[in-house]
Amino acid sequence: MAVNSPIPVPSQLLPVSGIMLGHAEAGIRKADRKDLLVMKLVPTATVSGVFTSNRFCAAPVQVSKAHLESAALTSLPISALVINTGNANAGTGLAGLVAANTTCNELARLMNCEASQILPFSTGVILEPLPVERLVAGLPSAIQNLQEDNWFSAAEAIMTTDTQPKAASRTVQVGAHLVTLTGISKGAGMIMPNMATMLGFIAMDAKVAQPVLDVMVKQVSDRSFNCISIDGDTSTNDSFMLIATGASACDISDVDSADYATLLGAVQSLAQQLAQMIVRDGEGATKFMTVKVEQGRNVEECRQVAYSIANSPLVKTAFFASDPNLGRLLMAIGKAGITDLDVGNVNLYLDDVWVVKHGGRNPDYQEVDGQRVMQQSEIVTRVILARGEASATVWTCDFSHEYVTINADYRS
Amino acid sequence: MAVNSPIPVPSQLLPVSGIMLGHAEAGIRKADRKDLLVMKLVPTATVSGVFTSNRFCAAPVQVSKAHLESAALTSLPISALVINTGNANAGTGLAGLVAANTTCNELARLMNCEASQILPFSTGVILEPLPVERLVAGLPSAIQNLQEDNWFSAAEAIMTTDTQPKAASRTVQVGAHLVTLTGISKGAGMIMPNMATMLGFIAMDAKVAQPVLDVMVKQVSDRSFNCISIDGDTSTNDSFMLIATGASACDISDVDSADYATLLGAVQSLAQQLAQMIVRDGEGATKFMTVKVEQGRNVEECRQVAYSIANSPLVKTAFFASDPNLGRLLMAIGKAGITDLDVGNVNLYLDDVWVVKHGGRNPDYQEVDGQRVMQQSEIVTRVILARGEASATVWTCDFSHEYVTINADYRS
Repeated sequence: MAVNSPIPVPSQLLPVSGIMLGHAEAGIRKADRKDLLVMKLVPTATVSGVFTSNRFCAAPVQVSKAHLESAALTSLPISALVINTGNANAGTGLAGLVAANTTCNELARLMNCEASQILPFSTGVILEPLPVERLVAGLPSAIQNLQEDNWFSAAEAIMTTDTQPKAASRTVQVGAHLVTLTGISKGAGMIMPNMATMLGFIAMDAKVAQPVLDVMVKQVSDRSFNCISIDGDTSTNDSFMLIATGASACDISDVDSADYATLLGAVQSLAQQLAQMIVRDGEGATKFMTVKVEQGRNVEECRQVAYSIANSPLVKTAFFASDPNLGRLLMAIGKAGITDLDVGNVNLYLDDVWVVKHGGRNPDYQEVDGQRVMQQSEIVTRVILARGEASATVWTCDFSHEYVTINADYRS
Repeated sequence: MAVNSPIPVPSQLLPVSGIMLGHAEAGIRKADRKDLLVMKLVPTATVSGVFTSNRFCAAPVQVSKAHLESAALTSLPISALVINTGNANAGTGLAGLVAANTTCNELARLMNCEASQILPFSTGVILEPLPVERLVAGLPSAIQNLQEDNWFSAAEAIMTTDTQPKAASRTVQVGAHLVTLTGISKGAGMIMPNMATMLGFIAMDAKVAQPVLDVMVKQVSDRSFNCISIDGDTSTNDSFMLIATGASACDISDVDSADYATLLGAVQSLAQQLAQMIVRDGEGATKFMTVKVEQGRNVEECRQVAYSIANSPLVKTAFFASDPNLGRLLMAIGKAGITDLDVGNVNLYLDDVWVVKHGGRNPDYQEVDGQRVMQQSEIVTRVILARGEASATVWTCDFSHEYVTINADYRS
């Protein structure tokens, strides 16, 4: 039950020159379901990524990181990304690394490149051996299926408990050139990315120099995938990859240029849309909540407060119930770890309703007004800390019976 | 649906000489329900407490802290504690402080003492004005009801979403003297105390010098109420109070004495029992989980890992479902914030079943064994970090549909 998130229309997803996508049904966990995706890049492409900060990061994350480092050293470009669902290949030790490497070796053989030119990704159940022979057996049909106009199917192929595919496109005029961007993502549970989310891919046809792309991927993720939470749990497999195919005439080589800023804006906007799609389709989500924390001393403390609200089970269940039990918001602000917070200065708004004034209940606050806002499917909570000029925004969803049902049933 | 937590038997709760308890139905939130408790102390009593670290700490918490400080300065002993349920008197600003002070003034008048000799406590809904006139009107009948043998009713009088009263007694031989201890607590939701829990009271008839009691209350709470979590949310009203009436001949004035150690052991054991009763009766709890983290570099990092497991919604829903989806435990260990953790050394046991060996699935692990343990109502998860000699234990419960139901309905 995704919140106000229309399913993408395949014909509105723009092909990005220089990248082809092919999927297959490899039967990794379940039969008759797309669970394998190959993304093939032209040799001009640059690729940059950010990955989970979870110490138990999955084998494919370790291999992808190593291959990106190797690409930077050898100048051999990344040729393809390969993504499977149904198994996370995490907590699988040495055998998991062997399986991820086998995946790369086999795809490299089929594509006539080096294994180090392949980036592997996995999503699904943790602590179970990856059935790599089934994955490998599916590769030829994924390759056969490669085409530029395949983004919708690609978005479907990376779903797990997602109820709908997540994809979006846009074009942006950068100087004299029109750049096309398309991205896909998946999420649903175990979502509070620390470096990126599980999984996001954005491709564009601009040519972007590797060091510039490395800067951009961090700037983009810090304002998009790193601003969402569904359950406060950080996956072992989070990865966000930014791909610039270089197939268009647009060439960006300077992070201080106006063209960079224009392109950054477009990528950030697309990434935010994809990140919000993940929240709107969060496991069991019935409401989409924006938590804005303003006038903090620094961004870090604003994020602390925003996440303390976004991850509180008591706040999330109150939103689920449309119950303006707003004292729970104060509880979450107070426990966020700002030890010198003067709560007597704190103000809190629910959309346009001023609920807390100078740390206490606003005398003009009427419960009927809080009730009206709580019944909406999209709600903005705004906290004014009144101690500085920094701010941060986090997007999250509510906590429903359906979340418990999904996570008590998932895997079983 | 409390987990393996038999309801206390009134006749097994031992009166503690020097303290009397009286309750009333003040109709603070609901009619026909005990919601007011007065605990009256003899003048020889010493009292020490720890309180929530939530910055939005409730008005009664602020007043109780101030009155304890004042007692230390003036040597006027604490005469009584007064506790109401149905309203937390938190997020209520100046009006809330006035209400808490009014409560103290009125009780002091009725008891012929100073207002600063009264400690007020509240629990219930946050951000709503305390109906102090109803509370005050109930005080005379609470005083009329005062008697030593009233612990069971007292435990009932402080319940909110608790499904059963929490109380326990014991005696301990300290040197030549037998000391009697009785305690009560309440919890159910918004439970991850940072300094104490909402609410715990332990009384004993030993005479304990104030500085000694101040040390003891911290040592006890750090091994009991500060080791539990139901939902990771820290209440605005947490308070744990330790009362030594001084009515027995046992006199403790030295923290380095053998008698202190003996008494500390008994108080700690009673506090752990009361803390575990809170978890067993956690909102919607169907399982009682002990999370032990061993061989860490220091206690702090062991607690970080233990709480990361105990607070993960994905771990808690898997336990609810009796599903050995144990990769989620690795996820929680990995995201706990130990940035230099070598996961290749980590071992994990579920009761006696060795699940994770050197960071990966134990080759000898059989799902049927994990399944067997997961079906139990009490489960010990043991994590071996293999990087030091510190350890920590946290007690928690699972996350069920009932939790969502309770917290979507509570207040409404």
